[in-house]
Amino acid sequence: MAPVKVFGPAMSTNVARVLVCLEEVGAEYEVVDIDFKAMEHKSPEHLVRNPFGQIPAFQDGDLLLFESRAIAKYVLRKYKTDEVDLLREGNLKEAAMVDVWTEVDAHTYNPALSPIVYECLINPLMRGLPTNQTVVDESLEKLKKVLEVYEARLSQHKYLAGDFVSFADLNHFPYTFYFMATPHAALFDSYPHVKKP
Amino acid sequence: MAPVKVFGPAMSTNVARVLVCLEEVGAEYEVVDIDFKAMEHKSPEHLVRNPFGQIPAFQDGDLLLFESRAIAKYVLRKYKTDEVDLLREGNLKEAAMVDVWTEVDAHTYNPALSPIVYECLINPLMRGLPTNQTVVDESLEKLKKVLEVYEARLSQHKYLAGDFVSFADLNHFPYTFYFMATPHAALFDSYPHVKKP
Repeated sequence: MAPVKVFGPAMSTNVARVLVCLEEVGAEYEVVDIDFKAMEHKSPEHLVRNPFGQIPAFQDGDLLLFESRAIAKYVLRKYKTDEVDLLREGNLKEAAMVDVWTEVDAHTYNPALSPIVYECLINPLMRGLPTNQTVVDESLEKLKKVLEVYEARLSQHKYLAGDFVSFADLNHFPYTFYFMATPHAALFDSYPHVKKP
Repeated sequence: MAPVKVFGPAMSTNVARVLVCLEEVGAEYEVVDIDFKAMEHKSPEHLVRNPFGQIPAFQDGDLLLFESRAIAKYVLRKYKTDEVDLLREGNLKEAAMVDVWTEVDAHTYNPALSPIVYECLINPLMRGLPTNQTVVDESLEKLKKVLEVYEARLSQHKYLAGDFVSFADLNHFPYTFYFMATPHAALFDSYPHVKKP
């Protein structure tokens, strides 16, 4: 069977979200780079994969998908085993807690953390723009409040959704990976239960 | 059995997302208002329900949930029947398409449409702030591009995820409902397949 294909640069956090899941389930896959400088993401070929002209896109045989969280969940469902069940959709309460903390990543954690990654890494290194320190400082204050809630949660449970690793945890990897390359990585030292897993 | 409880003002779009799903599955429920002026959302009782002090929150017996999309999915799973299966998690491809268009609502449709609702309704009517016409105009341009993609999709399929109604469609109701009370409601007339369902 042909391996599934992920379209987009692997360094993008949204592409990485899909790749982390593919690695976690041990699936065979191929990454097809999309050249943004050549506007390949707006090409007719790519618009068939993603009508909004964004990345990632995904192909499994004749099935085309886009939106990183939707692709990731497809991967986790398709390759689910008794040992690797990261969505827990067979258990009403566990699935709900996976969903809760997946949404927290999307709507609370990422919006606090990602501006720091943009201002400290992406803007200066890739776009030649200066770091806006006001944005960084405001985001750090927001992030501290978010991490206080995470610290309390992870003092009571081994992982975000409960005492089992899940999609909710994996979702946090891509942006946190880049955050750890900013000058503010030591912030996590104040939250030992967050840092541990 | 005690009815499930939804905490938060019913006029909030995120609370409405949950209520639409409860109505769709015909579940018995109770809405418990949260008084924002009295800072009830930051009270110790509410922080147990939602550690970020936001609404909605949800209670089903001893299970407490927050994040509207997570609550909504719990409701749709719990009350799923052969007739009313709005997540289609038993079908790999259908579930993926429900997820794709649910994510599009969260990350593309709402970010284009919601600033218009804020500027035309919420700011002038609830906060005594003037409408920022630049924001409205920019958002309308974004929304037109989004609606072009929706029009193409809904010319090929009866509903967003395919030829079956799903959570993806329901997600669009709360903000679109308020958009229809703005002076820009007629925008949808240019997209007949979007307007129809």
